[in-house]
Amino acid sequence: MDEKNRYVQKITPKSSDFSRWYVEVIRKAELADYAPMKGMMVIRPYGYAAWENIKDLMDKRIKETGHKNAYFPLFIPESFLKKETEHLEGFSPEVAWVTHGGEEELEERLAVRPTSEAIIGHMFSKWISSYRDLPVLINQWANIVRWEKGTRPFLRTSEFLWQEGHTAHETSQEAEEETLKMLSVYKEFVESELAISVISGKKTDREKFAGASATYSVEALMSDNKALQMGTSHFLGQHFSRVFDIKFEDRNQKLQYVWQTSWGVSTRMVGALIMAHGDDSGLCFPPRVAPVQVIIIPISIGDWKQAVMPVAEQIKKGLKQKGFRVEIDSREQFTPGWKFSEWEMKGVPLRLEIGPRDIKNNNAVLVRRDNRKKQVVSREELDNKVREILDDMQKDMLDRSLKFREDNTHEVLNYQEFKSVMGSEMGFIRTYWCGNPECELNIKEDTKATIRAIISEEKEGKCIYCGKNAGYLVVFAKAY
Amino acid sequence: MDEKNRYVQKITPKSSDFSRWYVEVIRKAELADYAPMKGMMVIRPYGYAAWENIKDLMDKRIKETGHKNAYFPLFIPESFLKKETEHLEGFSPEVAWVTHGGEEELEERLAVRPTSEAIIGHMFSKWISSYRDLPVLINQWANIVRWEKGTRPFLRTSEFLWQEGHTAHETSQEAEEETLKMLSVYKEFVESELAISVISGKKTDREKFAGASATYSVEALMSDNKALQMGTSHFLGQHFSRVFDIKFEDRNQKLQYVWQTSWGVSTRMVGALIMAHGDDSGLCFPPRVAPVQVIIIPISIGDWKQAVMPVAEQIKKGLKQKGFRVEIDSREQFTPGWKFSEWEMKGVPLRLEIGPRDIKNNNAVLVRRDNRKKQVVSREELDNKVREILDDMQKDMLDRSLKFREDNTHEVLNYQEFKSVMGSEMGFIRTYWCGNPECELNIKEDTKATIRAIISEEKEGKCIYCGKNAGYLVVFAKAY
Repeated sequence: MDEKNRYVQKITPKSSDFSRWYVEVIRKAELADYAPMKGMMVIRPYGYAAWENIKDLMDKRIKETGHKNAYFPLFIPESFLKKETEHLEGFSPEVAWVTHGGEEELEERLAVRPTSEAIIGHMFSKWISSYRDLPVLINQWANIVRWEKGTRPFLRTSEFLWQEGHTAHETSQEAEEETLKMLSVYKEFVESELAISVISGKKTDREKFAGASATYSVEALMSDNKALQMGTSHFLGQHFSRVFDIKFEDRNQKLQYVWQTSWGVSTRMVGALIMAHGDDSGLCFPPRVAPVQVIIIPISIGDWKQAVMPVAEQIKKGLKQKGFRVEIDSREQFTPGWKFSEWEMKGVPLRLEIGPRDIKNNNAVLVRRDNRKKQVVSREELDNKVREILDDMQKDMLDRSLKFREDNTHEVLNYQEFKSVMGSEMGFIRTYWCGNPECELNIKEDTKATIRAIISEEKEGKCIYCGKNAGYLVVFAKAY
Repeated sequence: MDEKNRYVQKITPKSSDFSRWYVEVIRKAELADYAPMKGMMVIRPYGYAAWENIKDLMDKRIKETGHKNAYFPLFIPESFLKKETEHLEGFSPEVAWVTHGGEEELEERLAVRPTSEAIIGHMFSKWISSYRDLPVLINQWANIVRWEKGTRPFLRTSEFLWQEGHTAHETSQEAEEETLKMLSVYKEFVESELAISVISGKKTDREKFAGASATYSVEALMSDNKALQMGTSHFLGQHFSRVFDIKFEDRNQKLQYVWQTSWGVSTRMVGALIMAHGDDSGLCFPPRVAPVQVIIIPISIGDWKQAVMPVAEQIKKGLKQKGFRVEIDSREQFTPGWKFSEWEMKGVPLRLEIGPRDIKNNNAVLVRRDNRKKQVVSREELDNKVREILDDMQKDMLDRSLKFREDNTHEVLNYQEFKSVMGSEMGFIRTYWCGNPECELNIKEDTKATIRAIISEEKEGKCIYCGKNAGYLVVFAKAY
């Protein structure tokens, strides 16, 4: 058995046990590690670099759409959460409570923020008094705590990192437009940066955010055919503005409550990258968010440290100047074969091999992570070829994701077939639903599938469960 | 009284009540607001933008010196803090404790991190096993909670934002070098980006970080002649590695404990910018970290919306393309005079005025915030002039800060004079100290001054307090 195989064999094949493969890849690729506290994780440098890339690309979009970053307190007084019953009931089973500051017991318990509508609502009421102050378009990058029972790294952890946008508007229409605008920003982001094809739509009342008038989400299909919610955008109506008394004098000198939205994406996106693109050899990062885009591996033959390393360093420098994220693996204790499989595990999009013979021929060898395609490229062409291959790979990954989603989306019109699909291949099921929460709940109890998104209002078909006239075209899936 | 004066007069003059001026500027310039929980603040978009600039410029330096970002949990089990007595005693009066998760009481209390040595030490012990794993060079951007009694926005709040570097090394010498390297990075950063001249040196045992072998800091003099600690770098020795069992096999196959460092700067830096550079008209941001570098104010005469605004937009676009942070204040409800003083309050380095006459003459008027110097500049020269003025201003601000520090550093050799200086003009006092903590404590009780930094070992002079032979040349000040 050669070294390469030994290394790879330490991982459970994806097809045999997806959950185990998932956590093994995370630890092996050093994305994250378990913290000593139940349900918490440590994001290691390699995983955090992926998050930083996601964060930078998302932050740019958030700012380009007119939002400004701010920072609100980690703690929210219990009385603030209590002001809004639905919101409190939604979150209180998951709240971590601070009861002591130093040696003293606090007069009032403080929630470690499970989301920030309450504290931001309170501040908005101080900042907003006239229509001239509107819209308020704010975003926050922050850590969030939800005391979750079943946890899994990146997908559901007691603490996670996210951005939460919070906006206030003069009119309902403007707030609804904002909600949909951010939904479309999320969709465009996930597709063009993460190379994951998604559907978007409205949530049912059962699935919506505690306190929202309407919740929209983008939903992707992971490669085990379960759905992952990638981001949500909420139209809050005047729900929080009434509770926190956020009023403004309108253009006719009348006092009105503001209309609000909130929206967020989180470190869960890193989990999506793993589950959407990984394979039996490990991760496969889309080039645009890859922590390392090109790994240079010197072929360690003969006097490679003198003969190969200087050229490798030169190539690294050249690619860095062109804006690529590039590293050299010059470790002496590992063979090239070992390094190949280690960097495949880490999902680096492009491997650049260079050895004494390549130097003689003025070449380098490029190998794509996703399809293993190998090309010998002359040194002069290198910059352009790297750019071209990375662009192609980004595009191909999205194309494959789209095809995967389409291939695994089933149009199903009878409940026996629904159960059979959900019991075997899973994936998305497009079908009709009457709108009755009981049908929705019964389906969940039978099959564990939930309505991921309402695609449109639709009177033509029949409800998949009760057979009555449909109200909606919806997409079901089993979800993370 | 014209509008401009009305606006400005709402602020207490800096010279009459510095503390009040400080909080009034913060609120008026919308840097931050008080949160409803004692000791906490909300960082508003304008203040957060300054912090983002600081963060980006510091993050670049942290990465250039070989460190990688990661993220560790917010909560630290009480037993972890208890492992290290000195560390626990230093921080336990300030710890916020989580005791409940959802409805359930936790088996063990969790500290909301007051600093992360304990949790990071625990993880290092899992990750490090060989000298080949070293050095580990990690940094984290995070929120920190310390239950402080006397709080003041940006300077001392129960929650603040910071970066904390944590490194592990093979040898004591390498760790000491790292400690001093990061101290010099901080010094260079504060001087070149924040335009604040600082001294740096070692802390006395009384003033060092709980658990460190040695603490170094950079210290600046604020314009009220009190000192502010701007950043600290700790040589931790093997203190935490022994407690958390962070061992590695060295090059001779012997097990050794790693040598560690930690270092940090925080949102306190925003407070320093206010106190070092502000004046009676408000803030004055150094151009390199200013949230807005150029504010364009259209002179609202006649049909300015048709005649002036398009040109203003064009200028904005041009400056943006050159990389400047630039905005236009096109609000209709305020006069240009009102806007001038509002943006002076917000400390924007350069004001660009443009009116119908300027357009006819193909000119614009530039006004520097720090010295109010006015220049009429032709449209063609604008980009270059803006660059030149901002560069000059950055340099002049640092020069003034250096001069201010030198002018307010007193060489004092007798204790009567020491008390007299500390009781009146304050500032830095350079003098000798024998090394006895009792002398240090007595001086603090007499004058509230503490040793901010040990500059060097020095046997020549006499201790300012007891008159015995000196051990050190030190700098005293009253500090925030």
